[in-house]
Amino acid sequence: MSILVVGSVAFDTIETPHGRRERCLGGAATHFALAASYFTDVRVIGVVGEDFLPEHEAVLTNRGIDTRGIERAPGLSFHWTGAYGGAMNEAKTLGTDLNVFATFSPKIPDAYKDSEFLFLANIDPVLQAQVRSQMPDVKLVCGDTMNYWIADHAANLAVVLKMLDVLLINDTEARMLSGETNIVRAAAGVLALGPKALVIKHGEYGATSFFCDRSFPGADSVAKPFRAPALPLAEVVDPTGAGDSFAGGFYGYLASQPKLTPEVFRRALFYGGVMGSFAVERFGTERLQSVTREEIEERFNLFVEISHLDLVSNGAGNAADAGA
Amino acid sequence: MSILVVGSVAFDTIETPHGRRERCLGGAATHFALAASYFTDVRVIGVVGEDFLPEHEAVLTNRGIDTRGIERAPGLSFHWTGAYGGAMNEAKTLGTDLNVFATFSPKIPDAYKDSEFLFLANIDPVLQAQVRSQMPDVKLVCGDTMNYWIADHAANLAVVLKMLDVLLINDTEARMLSGETNIVRAAAGVLALGPKALVIKHGEYGATSFFCDRSFPGADSVAKPFRAPALPLAEVVDPTGAGDSFAGGFYGYLASQPKLTPEVFRRALFYGGVMGSFAVERFGTERLQSVTREEIEERFNLFVEISHLDLVSNGAGNAADAGA
Repeated sequence: MSILVVGSVAFDTIETPHGRRERCLGGAATHFALAASYFTDVRVIGVVGEDFLPEHEAVLTNRGIDTRGIERAPGLSFHWTGAYGGAMNEAKTLGTDLNVFATFSPKIPDAYKDSEFLFLANIDPVLQAQVRSQMPDVKLVCGDTMNYWIADHAANLAVVLKMLDVLLINDTEARMLSGETNIVRAAAGVLALGPKALVIKHGEYGATSFFCDRSFPGADSVAKPFRAPALPLAEVVDPTGAGDSFAGGFYGYLASQPKLTPEVFRRALFYGGVMGSFAVERFGTERLQSVTREEIEERFNLFVEISHLDLVSNGAGNAADAGA
Repeated sequence: MSILVVGSVAFDTIETPHGRRERCLGGAATHFALAASYFTDVRVIGVVGEDFLPEHEAVLTNRGIDTRGIERAPGLSFHWTGAYGGAMNEAKTLGTDLNVFATFSPKIPDAYKDSEFLFLANIDPVLQAQVRSQMPDVKLVCGDTMNYWIADHAANLAVVLKMLDVLLINDTEARMLSGETNIVRAAAGVLALGPKALVIKHGEYGATSFFCDRSFPGADSVAKPFRAPALPLAEVVDPTGAGDSFAGGFYGYLASQPKLTPEVFRRALFYGGVMGSFAVERFGTERLQSVTREEIEERFNLFVEISHLDLVSNGAGNAADAGA
C-alpha cells in the first residue's frame, strides 16, 4: 500500500570525524522515502528551490519514489549545516536556512489522495495538521517531531499528537514531552497526549514500542512494550537521517504487509533498525541509494541472530533444571 | 559448580527519590552472592567489622551462601554513602569509609580451594590479582572494575585484565579503558588488554557481549556480539547493586550449566538482566532476599517475550514477499 510522506527535501552540509560534505541531498522526507522505497510505494510532498536539479530528483525517482508532490519555488532549497563530535550521538546545528521552506504550504496532488499510509515527518506541527486534515481516509497516521516544536510550539503540537496512530521520537524528546525522566513513565505521559502507539528510539541501543492499550492493532493482548536492538557498528560515518531512515524502514514494512498485527509491528521495529544501520554507513543518502533487497534481508537476519536465544532447540537447558 | 567471589561486604547509606536507608547491608560481593545463589553454590571472601551482626550474616546464610571466608576484624565495616538524582543512572558518592577494608588481605579457606568459578568483584586490582594467583586451577575467571581503578591504578589493573576470561563493565568504563568513544571499537580495545570475553552493561538498555575470537567457548563460530535487553521499569527504587546483581545472575547461571556454549553465554546475559531488574525494585538487598525461583523464570520469559520475534510460526510473512 502507498505511503504519503510530507517533510523536508533539503541540502545538508555535514561535518563528522570522517570528513565533510557540502550540500548533499538530505531532509527528513528524503531519508524516509528512500528507506521506505525498499518495501512499498512512496509519494513525497515537499518544496524545493531552483538549486534542486534533475540529478537530485533522480535520486528519488531511481528508487521509484513519486515526486509529483514536490513543489518548485523561486529561491534556494532548505539548507542545514551541522557537525558531529567524537561520540556522534548529537549534531551541533551550525546553520538552518529555511529558504523556500519558510513559506511552504503543503498541497496534495489528486493522484496522492488514495494513499493509505500517511507519514508526517518532522516539520512545523501546523503543516502536519494541515496535511492530516486533507487526508481524512488514511488507514494509519504516523508522525515525528523534535525538541524545537516541543519547547516552543507546544499548543500546535498538542493538536497533531491527537491525530496520530503512532509517534516516533527519541528518549530526550519523550522526556521533554512528558516531563518524566523514567522512560516508562515518560512513555505513559506521551501516550496520554494522544498517540495510540509510541516508538522511542534509543540511538545505538535500539528502540522500544509502547501502546496506549490493547485496542491498537499492533499491540499484543496486554499491550506490553517491545524492545528491538540496534546493530553494534564499529564505524558511523554520518548519523544524519538515521532516525528518518529508521522511520522509513519501520513504516515501509508496516505498509507492505496485508494486516497490522503485533508480530508485524515488532518486525517493523527490526526493519527500522536495519535501515537506520545502513543509513549511517556513508554520508547523506549514499548508502540508502545503493543498498539491495538481499542486503536488507541479510541484515534483518543478523539483527535476529545477535538478539535471539535459540528457543526452538532449547539446547542450553533451563535454569530450573540446574542446581541450587 | 561452586563460585568463589571476593569483594566488599559493606553497609550502604542510600538516598533516592523514593526515600533514604541508613546502613543497609550492601557491597559488591553481597549483591553478587545473593543473585548467584538462585543458580548455584556461592562462597564469599571479604572482611567485616564488629558492626556486622548475626542478622546481617543470616541474609547470606539464609540463601545457602558460604560465609566462612568472611573475615572479622576489629573496627567498623566498609561504609558507602551515596545519593541518586531524578534520572537514577548515576550515584553521587557522598562518603566512602573503608574502615576494616583499608587493610584487607584476602585469605582463601581450604574449604574454598575446589571452587571452579572465580568472580573478582570491584576491589583494588592488587587484591584481585592476589586471589587469582591463589586459585590457579579454576575453570573460569570473571571480573569487574570501576572508573577509580581505571584512572588511578592502571598498571595494577593491567595485570588483572590479562588474568580474566570475562570482564564485566559499563559503557563509561569501556570508553575510559580503551580511550575510544565508539562502543564497538572500545570493546576491541578492551579485549586487546587481555580478557577473552567482554560484557558491556548499558544500564536500562541491556548489555552486549563481545569476544576476543572464536576460541572462547562462549563465542559463536564468528565471535559475533550479542545484545540482551533490559526490562523497561516504571519504578526504580534503588539502583545500588544493580550491576553486581547482573553479574551474579550472569555468572551464577554460567556456573549452573554443565558446559559453556554460545547459547549458555547468551542465556546468562538474559539472567543477568533478570536479576538486575529485581535488585532495583527495592532498597539494598531487600528484593534479592525474597525473590523466588518461579519469579525468576517468569521474568526470564518476559525478557524473551519483549525482545523476540515469532520465528517459529513466521506468521507475519517476510519483507521479501512484499511489493516494491
